[in-house]
Amino acid sequence: MRCRKCGEKAVINMKQHRLSLCKHHFLDWLPEQVEKMIQKYGMFSKNDTVLVAVSGGKDSLALWDVLWRLGYKADGVYINLGIDEEHDYSNQSQAYAQSFSAERNLELITINIKDKYSKSLSEFARQNRRGRSKPCSLCGLLKRHILNQTALEKNYDVLVTAHNLDDEVAILLANTLDWSLDYLSRGLPILPSGPGFAQKGKPFCRVYERESAAYSFLRKISYIHQECPYSINNKQAFFKHHLNQWEEKMPGTKLRFYLNYLRAIDEGAFAEKQEHAEVLAEKLCPQCGQPTTTGSLCAFCRLIKQK
Amino acid sequence: MRCRKCGEKAVINMKQHRLSLCKHHFLDWLPEQVEKMIQKYGMFSKNDTVLVAVSGGKDSLALWDVLWRLGYKADGVYINLGIDEEHDYSNQSQAYAQSFSAERNLELITINIKDKYSKSLSEFARQNRRGRSKPCSLCGLLKRHILNQTALEKNYDVLVTAHNLDDEVAILLANTLDWSLDYLSRGLPILPSGPGFAQKGKPFCRVYERESAAYSFLRKISYIHQECPYSINNKQAFFKHHLNQWEEKMPGTKLRFYLNYLRAIDEGAFAEKQEHAEVLAEKLCPQCGQPTTTGSLCAFCRLIKQK
Repeated sequence: MRCRKCGEKAVINMKQHRLSLCKHHFLDWLPEQVEKMIQKYGMFSKNDTVLVAVSGGKDSLALWDVLWRLGYKADGVYINLGIDEEHDYSNQSQAYAQSFSAERNLELITINIKDKYSKSLSEFARQNRRGRSKPCSLCGLLKRHILNQTALEKNYDVLVTAHNLDDEVAILLANTLDWSLDYLSRGLPILPSGPGFAQKGKPFCRVYERESAAYSFLRKISYIHQECPYSINNKQAFFKHHLNQWEEKMPGTKLRFYLNYLRAIDEGAFAEKQEHAEVLAEKLCPQCGQPTTTGSLCAFCRLIKQK
Repeated sequence: MRCRKCGEKAVINMKQHRLSLCKHHFLDWLPEQVEKMIQKYGMFSKNDTVLVAVSGGKDSLALWDVLWRLGYKADGVYINLGIDEEHDYSNQSQAYAQSFSAERNLELITINIKDKYSKSLSEFARQNRRGRSKPCSLCGLLKRHILNQTALEKNYDVLVTAHNLDDEVAILLANTLDWSLDYLSRGLPILPSGPGFAQKGKPFCRVYERESAAYSFLRKISYIHQECPYSINNKQAFFKHHLNQWEEKMPGTKLRFYLNYLRAIDEGAFAEKQEHAEVLAEKLCPQCGQPTTTGSLCAFCRLIKQK
């Protein structure tokens, strides 16, 4: 197996792209792919301030590394959710994020939800039935709100998350099985800013998880290997398992599924829903000022208010 | 396990509907479900003449039986494709269709493509590369054309096929992975008539394959059990396998996927594509008069012309 670019020994064979590369060319190639998506969707420019949502895992640290090397002004934000206090999952993740930023002399904002809202995710989760049965949904609610709030308060031009292709297609498949047009209409890797809503981007959206892992490995990025204790057996993991089997049998399936979907949005599928979403986005929570579908107190503020 | 309606011993437990039924109530229930879909989509009425595409398999004979018992004027049409002459697959299927119609004194039109077009499917398939690599696609082309032609020539009000829920969701999943909006926009269980195009309906669209098999078994309908020799390992079978695993883990997944999709069409997803398809449907093949996307010779007529 030889590198397509230089003929040296390849370190990775990506059947999905019919491409084998050596370490040197892979470490060039991946950021080029990311840059292309940033340009294609006009996510941000070299003049913009970028806030990277960092979990301490391989994807978010790899993304931050790539953006930094590409010359973007990218700071990080880490939210300590207080997950699994016993095994110290959140504190360990935070330590990885901190080492990473210190080594590169990058700025990292850290937010501890127990300090700020007097409860950890685990405590919020025990508070009501939805949290107990679906802690991942609660975690998503908290993170979305706090990340958006931080980007707005600190005047970042864009907030980016490190959702990779495997994440995106697993969510896409779940949303497609439900045919939830509200979600399907909002699936582009860029969401423009609006009232109470910071611009969002997903520069890793066409990077396979395996490619992101290889990048972190070859760059010797230290990250938390443990999966979040809540994520085991969730629905997304189930769909990822099946998508992996399809990918195995038909290499490139995930990428085709995702790119075909983006093309479908471009071709005007869900156009009506998109207009509707823009109208909805005008409704803001009277407490925090972030968008909410009802125009009354948003789900985050209702959660925080609960005793 | 007891029948929900009468408390007698149930013969089938349908987790997808949270419903167990005895033989008597199942044989009532399934036609009621079919009748509901016929009404909901205005597929046809008791005054219309219905042509059922019959393959000799469990689904098409069960459908014909159901329509006959519901009091519809339903004739059958069987196309002998000359598949696998050695194992006599087509002739055996035809014999099942003929016995079924004779027992019920129903009219069956039979068409032998070797007699009519001087070649069997196997011979057409050997004729070019597409046929050799994708005989199922060639078979679909031939059947669609001939069924449509027969319905038009013999003035039937509607042509119905016995696609069951498992068939529909497997096709839907494949089309969704491709995000082929042309196909997705045409997925309703009814396609209205147009120039050169007979009205089509799929009354079994929400019947699980297992329910259709149980119906045939309990009604003692004799049908060909052998799968078409070409169908083994095709893409549809692959997706059916995965959908079966999802159904196993989350009963009702197939039905939700399908009904949510129908709802999405109702909500106007793909509306633009549907209008576009209506414009396209005005283009007719100059030889046979059936719709074609190009306005020049259709794929069927091109195939027949080939030496």
